[in-house]
Amino acid sequence: MTGRAEDTSGLALRPIGHLHTPFRARADCPRNGRQLSPAPLCHASVLPDYHAGLRALDGFSHLILLYWMHEAAPGALLFTPPFDAEPRGLFATRAPWRPNPIGLSVVRFEGFEDDARLRVRYLDCIDGTPLLDIKPYLPTTDAEPDAAMGWLAPHATGKPQD
Amino acid sequence: MTGRAEDTSGLALRPIGHLHTPFRARADCPRNGRQLSPAPLCHASVLPDYHAGLRALDGFSHLILLYWMHEAAPGALLFTPPFDAEPRGLFATRAPWRPNPIGLSVVRFEGFEDDARLRVRYLDCIDGTPLLDIKPYLPTTDAEPDAAMGWLAPHATGKPQD
Repeated sequence: MTGRAEDTSGLALRPIGHLHTPFRARADCPRNGRQLSPAPLCHASVLPDYHAGLRALDGFSHLILLYWMHEAAPGALLFTPPFDAEPRGLFATRAPWRPNPIGLSVVRFEGFEDDARLRVRYLDCIDGTPLLDIKPYLPTTDAEPDAAMGWLAPHATGKPQD
Repeated sequence: MTGRAEDTSGLALRPIGHLHTPFRARADCPRNGRQLSPAPLCHASVLPDYHAGLRALDGFSHLILLYWMHEAAPGALLFTPPFDAEPRGLFATRAPWRPNPIGLSVVRFEGFEDDARLRVRYLDCIDGTPLLDIKPYLPTTDAEPDAAMGWLAPHATGKPQD
């Protein structure tokens, strides 16, 4: 371990925009963004300071959105999911109450609504969630269609629809 | 947009551990974690406070690691990649100098070295990088093997090797 790894100053985030979904409260959110069929249209709005960074997004069919799950209070590291009978470690789940509540969704990108707003599907977060990053989805490094799902295998929902 | 979306207090991160790779400096890092063949063994070490959250990770073949690219200074929102001829928006690239320098790698998980350390492959970050989150990779929501890669399509490297 190097000295620089201990320098944790500056780990502060700045929202680059917000996510707009039909889900007004946590209780309205689906278990994942592919559970609803059809998946509702959502929007990612980007603040003016960051518009220049959106150039050349056209042509990507999918994006990775990172966001701050601002209503998720820190929670138990070990818990029994509602659809399960055994306690599972938080890092073996996608529960929102993480030490760093950074949400991740692989979304379908359907172009720009206007200069500031992207049309996307497969979000499962609440309306108004702060957006942290937009990354292009690259199947060459991000797609592992045959990955084994451990304890979640019998509970999986949300097969890709396209 | 709701009022709560404007509350940006508390967007502070805490490392849950560190990543250990053979790459000592930025110049040593491959373009992506699947570029080197064979992909070197790396480790994710998790701080004692978070060990309980690792239970039930066994059985997942792949994980998503989020980390803080602590040596990435904020950079241009529009730039011409070295292997390209046109300026591209930062959010259409995986360049590290992002407004929020959160790195994401889909890694192969090869079990525990000991209680505190995970054996992983496909990392491309420098040794000592602070770890922010571990999520199980779920092909049902995370795998889009046919995704279109936009301007990056002719430049893609790092086809999944397994």
